[in-house]
Amino acid sequence: MRFFSDNAAPVCPQVLEAMGKANHVDTAYDGDALSEKLDGAFSDLFGRQVRALWVTTGTAANCLGLAALCPPQGAILCHGQAHIEVDEAGAPGFFTHGAKLILLPGHGAKVTPETVEQACARIRDDVHQVQPAALSITNATEYGLSYQPDEVAALGEIAKRRGIGFHLDGARFANAAAFTGADLADLSWRAGVDVMSFGFVKNGGMNAEALIFFDPAKAAAVPRLRKRAGHLLSKGRYLAAQILAMLENDLWLANARAANQAAAALAEACGPERLVYPVEANELFVRMTSDEAASLIGQGFDFYDWGPGEVRFVTSWNQDMAAVAKLAAAIRAL
Amino acid sequence: MRFFSDNAAPVCPQVLEAMGKANHVDTAYDGDALSEKLDGAFSDLFGRQVRALWVTTGTAANCLGLAALCPPQGAILCHGQAHIEVDEAGAPGFFTHGAKLILLPGHGAKVTPETVEQACARIRDDVHQVQPAALSITNATEYGLSYQPDEVAALGEIAKRRGIGFHLDGARFANAAAFTGADLADLSWRAGVDVMSFGFVKNGGMNAEALIFFDPAKAAAVPRLRKRAGHLLSKGRYLAAQILAMLENDLWLANARAANQAAAALAEACGPERLVYPVEANELFVRMTSDEAASLIGQGFDFYDWGPGEVRFVTSWNQDMAAVAKLAAAIRAL
Amino acid sequence: MRFFSDNAAPVCPQVLEAMGKANHVDTAYDGDALSEKLDGAFSDLFGRQVRALWVTTGTAANCLGLAALCPPQGAILCHGQAHIEVDEAGAPGFFTHGAKLILLPGHGAKVTPETVEQACARIRDDVHQVQPAALSITNATEYGLSYQPDEVAALGEIAKRRGIGFHLDGARFANAAAFTGADLADLSWRAGVDVMSFGFVKNGGMNAEALIFFDPAKAAAVPRLRKRAGHLLSKGRYLAAQILAMLENDLWLANARAANQAAAALAEACGPERLVYPVEANELFVRMTSDEAASLIGQGFDFYDWGPGEVRFVTSWNQDMAAVAKLAAAIRAL
Amino acid sequence: MRFFSDNAAPVCPQVLEAMGKANHVDTAYDGDALSEKLDGAFSDLFGRQVRALWVTTGTAANCLGLAALCPPQGAILCHGQAHIEVDEAGAPGFFTHGAKLILLPGHGAKVTPETVEQACARIRDDVHQVQPAALSITNATEYGLSYQPDEVAALGEIAKRRGIGFHLDGARFANAAAFTGADLADLSWRAGVDVMSFGFVKNGGMNAEALIFFDPAKAAAVPRLRKRAGHLLSKGRYLAAQILAMLENDLWLANARAANQAAAALAEACGPERLVYPVEANELFVRMTSDEAASLIGQGFDFYDWGPGEVRFVTSWNQDMAAVAKLAAAIRAL
Repeated sequence: MRFFSDNAAPVCPQVLEAMGKANHVDTAYDGDALSEKLDGAFSDLFGRQVRALWVTTGTAANCLGLAALCPPQGAILCHGQAHIEVDEAGAPGFFTHGAKLILLPGHGAKVTPETVEQACARIRDDVHQVQPAALSITNATEYGLSYQPDEVAALGEIAKRRGIGFHLDGARFANAAAFTGADLADLSWRAGVDVMSFGFVKNGGMNAEALIFFDPAKAAAVPRLRKRAGHLLSKGRYLAAQILAMLENDLWLANARAANQAAAALAEACGPERLVYPVEANELFVRMTSDEAASLIGQGFDFYDWGPGEVRFVTSWNQDMAAVAKLAAAIRAL
Repeated sequence: MRFFSDNAAPVCPQVLEAMGKANHVDTAYDGDALSEKLDGAFSDLFGRQVRALWVTTGTAANCLGLAALCPPQGAILCHGQAHIEVDEAGAPGFFTHGAKLILLPGHGAKVTPETVEQACARIRDDVHQVQPAALSITNATEYGLSYQPDEVAALGEIAKRRGIGFHLDGARFANAAAFTGADLADLSWRAGVDVMSFGFVKNGGMNAEALIFFDPAKAAAVPRLRKRAGHLLSKGRYLAAQILAMLENDLWLANARAANQAAAALAEACGPERLVYPVEANELFVRMTSDEAASLIGQGFDFYDWGPGEVRFVTSWNQDMAAVAKLAAAIRAL
Repeated sequence: MRFFSDNAAPVCPQVLEAMGKANHVDTAYDGDALSEKLDGAFSDLFGRQVRALWVTTGTAANCLGLAALCPPQGAILCHGQAHIEVDEAGAPGFFTHGAKLILLPGHGAKVTPETVEQACARIRDDVHQVQPAALSITNATEYGLSYQPDEVAALGEIAKRRGIGFHLDGARFANAAAFTGADLADLSWRAGVDVMSFGFVKNGGMNAEALIFFDPAKAAAVPRLRKRAGHLLSKGRYLAAQILAMLENDLWLANARAANQAAAALAEACGPERLVYPVEANELFVRMTSDEAASLIGQGFDFYDWGPGEVRFVTSWNQDMAAVAKLAAAIRAL
Repeated sequence: MRFFSDNAAPVCPQVLEAMGKANHVDTAYDGDALSEKLDGAFSDLFGRQVRALWVTTGTAANCLGLAALCPPQGAILCHGQAHIEVDEAGAPGFFTHGAKLILLPGHGAKVTPETVEQACARIRDDVHQVQPAALSITNATEYGLSYQPDEVAALGEIAKRRGIGFHLDGARFANAAAFTGADLADLSWRAGVDVMSFGFVKNGGMNAEALIFFDPAKAAAVPRLRKRAGHLLSKGRYLAAQILAMLENDLWLANARAANQAAAALAEACGPERLVYPVEANELFVRMTSDEAASLIGQGFDFYDWGPGEVRFVTSWNQDMAAVAKLAAAIRAL
């Protein structure tokens, strides 16, 4: 029974079906009928004219977005546990040609106005020190916390005041939206976000993520950067098909809700003492002795060893609720 | 009736089917059972231990390969009409961190020992001039010519003698293999090729190309470079499935033969006066007045206007032979 | 008797003296009194408000200037024999993060409106092809030809019409100014030049060149880029002192005239048959058999073997006119 | 009376004199007689065959050295207050093409075996995380602490065991050598250092620093990288002359001793309560109220405001000992 990673989950049937339906002749690259629908579909979703491009990975989406906001000589403020810092193999440095990440502290990988201001205050405004050009947050965070709209807006205000860009890593944006129930606009552009990645792969997609610019002008160079990075697929219609299928009837939201619900059931079983962070998306970081963990493994549960005394469970869009109930019971029985 | 681009063609049913079969839980990234079969499958195909990685585009495959051969301060010798020079938006400069392309002349985008030697002879071996670190050829070329094994070997010998790497852009390698009937080893490692991209997308695949290192040691850093470039997909099994389906029963070869056959039929209809280059793969560059071209368009044929007095036809793995016959007749009737 | 390179010449006494005078405590980097005079001094010289920065090499000056005009995904149009292409070890690729040089043909390394237009016409305006972002010329050219103001202006007009930047490599700008007798404004900003390097090292300086922006706004990021490239010297006053000494009483012009005069004397001795290019600065490219060259070497003359049947003579600001007369006589006697 | 920065100090007379003596015709770039002496001179100094190159700034020296040790996809371990992190405008990111700095904590900008091991222990050895490729320390540190030979050796041992490079920023290496009295070999290669910058500019030089490779093989690409970064001066002899003058009769050591002696006198005046760090080179970080600082400024002393409650004094090779005595008295009188 797998609780290891949402990347391990299969692809949603509606997505596969849409890819099959796209299997006919069409214009190459992103000139096809499906790819051309993306701007409109996301503009509808966010209630504002946006520019939306498909890419195959969250890393590419994040780093193309950051490259649009931050010049090589600039810096990106982000949490020290941010995916762009910890798990993208230095991709931000590659895409931005060497821009610097300035790492912020904070519980649960969450960025706060205070940590941003403190970091900025330490930087002399002279030619010797790298100046911040962008702020990046992840919602839901790498530790499964969701920002509320007002939290995002408080950060957006700082970004605006300081004249720096605001990027949102939305690998699990669907889970944050499902958890908060917030208006997508309030979680993004109305809160000052300039560019975001909107993840689908962890949520039932195969290999299509969206990169969304709330100010289309900021996206001007991005189609070239995407091609230059080898990310302009020649048969892009199969990516667009995935995304459109996920958007149809808010499948993305239903999937995220299902994953969150499974996580919530496990969270309840864990109880507050075991939980390192509140569970506000589809990830649980749980205090557990190695004996306890071994016992769960022995019962057929598969999860991530998160270092001494801690494990991680991740639930997926198609998590088997019977298995969830079994794991919940097993945790309670520890 | 479409003769515009092989990128416009649909995906082969066997490929789609294999992707559907892969739709179950498995390890993320390239740790899944299918991805782990790639090294073996290509080692069997080429008769030698190789390292094979999936990527989603030919541009990514080529440029990761070139980055493994050429340092930022080096140069890559290639034809002035090479795809890496003309149609990859500067991706080689991005992936190599600014290495230089030294452009060679030659009919039909074909590189010859003479042009390589002449280019090298012009370079002073001092610190002021960028020194060649790699040679890159495309087989079949951007103008539909196929290198024979001895032609590749003659270039490989120069590369070896000069101590530089040898890269092969194999976006249409299948078509060259089908045309020449040569042993794949003779077209690649036995002829001195160090690294090649092996294209599937133009030949019935969806979004999976293979990057093949004939000396696995040269690939040491490439998995990291792939991740750093945002090209490590989290559900890589759907790429591996495509490639394995294409290799099974030499589907790749059957598809290429079909495309070549359609092209040959058109070539015969054109006759030598119209053909700018001999047709040795699935592309035709044809002399044609704008009136003639207009007449074909009027009859429902779709193709690429290749500048004054010239058009391009490309045939695909699933080219409708009835349409080919119609186009052949229409050309004859011009 | 040396005619090998103007880089071999010593430093002008006025320059050395000025450096000695600067040898007192002052603010570090470019905050000192001398460095702060540069903007004003060059604004006076060019008759327009400019931003001027010292750097230590022409390569750094050129490439910082190009980086200010051309993004990583852009291209720089330049002559195939341009110093930035041939003799800067790929520095433009380094400073621009992989921008491409598009090479133009033309006699004597001279760029013409026709070659620029032809190169641009070959580029499709799509995402697959790198788009020109800047035009770069060298005055005097690498083969000792000087552009007249109207020639520069014709190129500047194209740059303006196409919306691309215009860079001038002025390693031997002094020699071109001396030869043409033109107003410096007419050779630069009035002819559309956006940024130029103004060389002093080949003309009697030690290690200070000027990088000049005719639109100070275009220079906004350059002080940071200079620091980031390790080119912000901590005791910059010794560079500023050199440049100011060269500007004082038009020493730069007197030095260039002296070098040009020596070259003109040799040109007369050579006669038109021997000269590969007209002599319009301080370099001569001269047809000469290897026997003839050997004879001159035997008589104690030192010069550059420019390949089969050709030699190069370069004259310097302090060229000994007696030695010039001897070489002229020796050439006549061949 | 200046205690602001050692960059503000003038150039040593012996250095200026040597530059004047070099003012004759010689081979360009680094082919001149003086530049060719550098390898030998530093080999003698360090008791081992080394490769030594001049560059004009410490930033360039450090970053060329780091680029030789760390690939774009690698990481450099350094202190969070290291000059390469704090005061080089992101130059390491530029020269290494985006390698990452992993920041270590520690008092007085000093790196310890513990902090290195802890940082390494946090890194998973997989393709998603950037792997350390080099360790960098500064001796004397940015806060004026000197590493003893055994401290360097303990770090060198870790670097060796982990198979990563070891870089030493020696902007004030002379001061550390003077303070410790240690054998230069024990402070460098014998302690495992692979490459170091050896600073002269803060110690009486004008604009010449040395970049020293203890394994000449590791320097193989560096002359090209130096040129590519615009750091190969065409009249390099004036840099070599500076360095050779500093080495002659250990002028570098005498100058550093003088600066250290002035700092020691001030340190005694401050007493341990005021000193934030022990004074082991030529910098003092001193606790002082803003009233106290204002009083000193009022008495004509010039120094750096190091944030609330702290000031920095730096002494130079030519510090006027009478002024030092006055400042010492003034501090005592506070």
